[in-house]
Amino acid sequence: MSSPLLEQLIDALRILPGVGQKTAQRMAYHVLERERDGATRLASVLAESVEKIGHCTRCRDFSETEVCAICTSASRDAHLLCVLESPADRMALEQATGFRGLYFILQGRLSPLDGIGPAELGLDQLAARLAEGEITEMIIATNPTVEGEATAHFLAQLARSKSVKPSRLAHGVPLGGELEYVDRGTLAHAFGSRIEMS
Amino acid sequence: MSSPLLEQLIDALRILPGVGQKTAQRMAYHVLERERDGATRLASVLAESVEKIGHCTRCRDFSETEVCAICTSASRDAHLLCVLESPADRMALEQATGFRGLYFILQGRLSPLDGIGPAELGLDQLAARLAEGEITEMIIATNPTVEGEATAHFLAQLARSKSVKPSRLAHGVPLGGELEYVDRGTLAHAFGSRIEMS
Repeated sequence: MSSPLLEQLIDALRILPGVGQKTAQRMAYHVLERERDGATRLASVLAESVEKIGHCTRCRDFSETEVCAICTSASRDAHLLCVLESPADRMALEQATGFRGLYFILQGRLSPLDGIGPAELGLDQLAARLAEGEITEMIIATNPTVEGEATAHFLAQLARSKSVKPSRLAHGVPLGGELEYVDRGTLAHAFGSRIEMS
Repeated sequence: MSSPLLEQLIDALRILPGVGQKTAQRMAYHVLERERDGATRLASVLAESVEKIGHCTRCRDFSETEVCAICTSASRDAHLLCVLESPADRMALEQATGFRGLYFILQGRLSPLDGIGPAELGLDQLAARLAEGEITEMIIATNPTVEGEATAHFLAQLARSKSVKPSRLAHGVPLGGELEYVDRGTLAHAFGSRIEMS
C-alpha cells in the first residue's frame, strides 16, 4: 500500500456493517478522489454523534437530550405504549402507521444464551412506567422470530401484572404476496386466525 | 426521526459509494449501538486522511508525502513504467504480479464527452518523464474497455514519439474459465492471437 494512513482508513471503514476489505478499499478511494468535503463533514458529524447521542431516559431510543422529542411531545397519547426491539423498528412503524402514542425501545430481545435478560432490556424501567398507571394499553411489536415471540409473551405477563391490556401486531399473509410463496408457518397461522367477512 | 444529529449522520454516510438511505440508517444504528470506539477512530482517521493524503508528484498515486514510497524506492527498476487508470488497479497488479518497476496513475481515462482530456490525466507530466530518457519500456495496463483501449492507443503514440517501447497486457481467455461462457469478442481475439506450443 502506498500510504500507511490510507491503510488505516481502509481498516477503520471495516467497522461499518457489511463492509469487508474490498468495499472498504473502494470507499476510501472514492472518498479521496471525489468526496473530500463530504468526508470532512462525515468525520465531524460522526465524532459529534458518538459524543452527544445517548439514550432517552424514558423510551431508551437514541436521543441527544435526556428525554427525546417524542416522549416530551404534548400531542402524543400517553395512554398507549408501543414496545419495540430497535430504533429502526420504531422508525418503520412511525412511517407506516398513524400511531400517536408513546414508544419503549428494548434495544434487543430476550436471549438467555447471549446473556440478554430482563435487566439488559430495561424491563424494570418498563415495569415502573406501567405501574405509574397512565398507560392503559401496551402494544407489543417485537419481531415475529422465536426470540421475539418469547419476549412478547414475557412482556404480556408483565403488562397483565400491572393491569395494563397487552396487544400485539396481527400475523397473517403480507399484502401483495402470493399464497404459493408464503411460508408454511405464516399460512397456517393466517388460516387459523381467519376473519369473517362483513 | 428522534434526533436531528442522527439524521445528519445518516445523511453524511450517504457520500459512501453504494450507500443509500436504508443502508446509511443501518450503519448509523450499528455504529451507535456497538461500535462507538471504532466510530471515534474512523472519524479521526477520515479527517486526517482528507487533510494529509494528496497525490504523489511523480506517479499521481495517493500519498502522504510529496513523492510516494514506491517512486523513492531504490530497489525498483527505473527502466520500466506501468501506466494504470486507478490506484485500485495498481494494488491489484502489485499483488498479482512480481512487477518491480515504477507506476504512473492516470486517475481516469480519456473521455472527451466528460471533458477528460490529456491534461486531466497528467499526460504532459508523463511525456516529460518519458523525455528524461531513463524509461525504456512503458507497459500500458488501462482497462480493456472502449475508453481504456482508446487511451492505450494514445499512450502508445506518446511513448513512440519519445523513443520508448510501448507494450500492453495480453488479451485472451481468462484462466479457469470455460470457452462456452467466454464472450465472443474475447474468444475471437484469443483465437487470432494464438501462440505456437513448444
